[in-house]
Amino acid sequence: MKTYFDERQRLHHPQREMHNGDWTAHVETHVRADSICAAIGPLDRPADYGMAPLLAVHDAAYLEFLKTAFAEWRAAGRPGEAIGYSWPVVRRRPLDLDRIEAKLGRFSYDAGTPIGEETWTSAYWAAQCAVAAAEDLHAGARRAFALCRPPGHHAGRDYLGGYCYLNNAAIAAEHLIRSGSRRVAVLDVDYHHGNGTQDIFYARGDVGFVSLHGDPRTEYPFFWGHADERGEGGGTGANLNLPLPRGTDAPRYLGALEQGCAEISRWEPDHLVVSFGADTFAEDPISNFAIRTPEFAAIGARIAALDLPTAVVMEGGYASEALGRNVATFLNGLGEG
Amino acid sequence: MKTYFDERQRLHHPQREMHNGDWTAHVETHVRADSICAAIGPLDRPADYGMAPLLAVHDAAYLEFLKTAFAEWRAAGRPGEAIGYSWPVVRRRPLDLDRIEAKLGRFSYDAGTPIGEETWTSAYWAAQCAVAAAEDLHAGARRAFALCRPPGHHAGRDYLGGYCYLNNAAIAAEHLIRSGSRRVAVLDVDYHHGNGTQDIFYARGDVGFVSLHGDPRTEYPFFWGHADERGEGGGTGANLNLPLPRGTDAPRYLGALEQGCAEISRWEPDHLVVSFGADTFAEDPISNFAIRTPEFAAIGARIAALDLPTAVVMEGGYASEALGRNVATFLNGLGEG
Repeated sequence: MKTYFDERQRLHHPQREMHNGDWTAHVETHVRADSICAAIGPLDRPADYGMAPLLAVHDAAYLEFLKTAFAEWRAAGRPGEAIGYSWPVVRRRPLDLDRIEAKLGRFSYDAGTPIGEETWTSAYWAAQCAVAAAEDLHAGARRAFALCRPPGHHAGRDYLGGYCYLNNAAIAAEHLIRSGSRRVAVLDVDYHHGNGTQDIFYARGDVGFVSLHGDPRTEYPFFWGHADERGEGGGTGANLNLPLPRGTDAPRYLGALEQGCAEISRWEPDHLVVSFGADTFAEDPISNFAIRTPEFAAIGARIAALDLPTAVVMEGGYASEALGRNVATFLNGLGEG
Repeated sequence: MKTYFDERQRLHHPQREMHNGDWTAHVETHVRADSICAAIGPLDRPADYGMAPLLAVHDAAYLEFLKTAFAEWRAAGRPGEAIGYSWPVVRRRPLDLDRIEAKLGRFSYDAGTPIGEETWTSAYWAAQCAVAAAEDLHAGARRAFALCRPPGHHAGRDYLGGYCYLNNAAIAAEHLIRSGSRRVAVLDVDYHHGNGTQDIFYARGDVGFVSLHGDPRTEYPFFWGHADERGEGGGTGANLNLPLPRGTDAPRYLGALEQGCAEISRWEPDHLVVSFGADTFAEDPISNFAIRTPEFAAIGARIAALDLPTAVVMEGGYASEALGRNVATFLNGLGEG
């Protein structure tokens, strides 16, 4: 399988995030990508597919904001990284705003996802990896892996959050649809609910979304990922959330995965996009499941049993030293199809 | 005129807020109330009208959150003041959340409005002052002043923000309606748009809202206060925003006030509630208008010319040393009716 990565994805270097009442050192570092590269390399550089696949998922105004936010921040005389302090709670709509803090609030939902000088560059190339993986599937490959960093599944059509700026999995899924796929399923096995992906496809019947994740009653992102969120309009029934309690171990996790995979089989998609996070790992520093390294093989194997052309898009996983092993184990379990 | 204040409003003591990328010392201190007390005292203690007037404006779940948030924060082992780091941007709805940070996001929209041990107590008594002022008008008084601190106009039915927890002006207006007033106008002359008040009455025809404020394209709260927000449903036309540019001085301000007052006269309300902020003052440390102390008398006089029974509810104003003088000058201009 092709495994996509561009060195420019290492440039994004967030310093800190607001968490539980104060700043903490940011955990989404380039060391994560290094760990995966070391474990599965050599990797393939994606082609540059340009802005069209990004514009197919994200609002143009949001992309323009992402590209220019850091320069605006500097021009306003602000030190450090661009981060918001106020967010709209109601009547969210396009507004003619002329202050960087206002725009940061308009286009984000948390204080943990700073924009630095190279954020756009790294996010852009992470998205190109996702497009490259989708292209491979479209060309008939059974497997492709996009080492997306920064991750993507918390980013919505017009908002950033959860360390995510561009929704790589959504970009891959949409690219498959626009390339002729009749139906695409996105399976999100990151520890955290993929709220951005859910939002983007919530009213769509051609892209189904299944997510296994820590129960949002206590786990980030809190406001999405509840079991009663089943889609709307033409997407009703095509969204399945399987929240799981803290401490979930492999047997319990595989039981929920069985349920999620059965649902995907019923949808009979042409292609599968997997949002893969290794933060379900027992030793992940910010998460609370209990998956051991060898058990990622079983997760990969169950997904392989869906017998679908599959693009894997990297999401979270913050135990950087073990991250490469966990990703490699998952990909080995998934196999070459 | 009666002037209401309860000593317990001094207890709330926020330490810091997130602003333009980092913590800054919080400006909404009890020194503000001290300055006003010194300038206009002696003051009257409000009676305790209980929870009913608060429940007439705010969601029960929000009030319960406000009362218990600090204890939950402490129980979760968090240091300092309770403050959020993640906010929902879409599909905001009642959710069964079981983590204090999740609830802080659910019920707030900024990182500048911390909840400390005494926040509820001070906010409660500020609201009682507003009810007392409304009661005075109901009993036939022409004027009443509620020295509300913390302020209230940024707080919505179920959210805090902008240093505000309970919407004192909305509580006063609603109390007047429930006491038999046919129609109430709320005139907001704080530097910042009164987004909470607007939201609470946005679909209501019996409470009109007029606000003069710094243009939200560049001024907090950014996402509300734009000129095209005219109300909805039964409230269509009963919401008038008059955004003004940075540097607005008294002549320009009085011109906009003329327009706002003319609109209020057309509505023919029985009662007027004024959200008065002295942060339009030229030397206010966080605002950008250019009103001088003597000019607050002219603002008061124009409002007096509406010839309406008027309850004044204190909102912002952060030049603490001058604050008392500015408030007293405004109240003198307003007169006894």
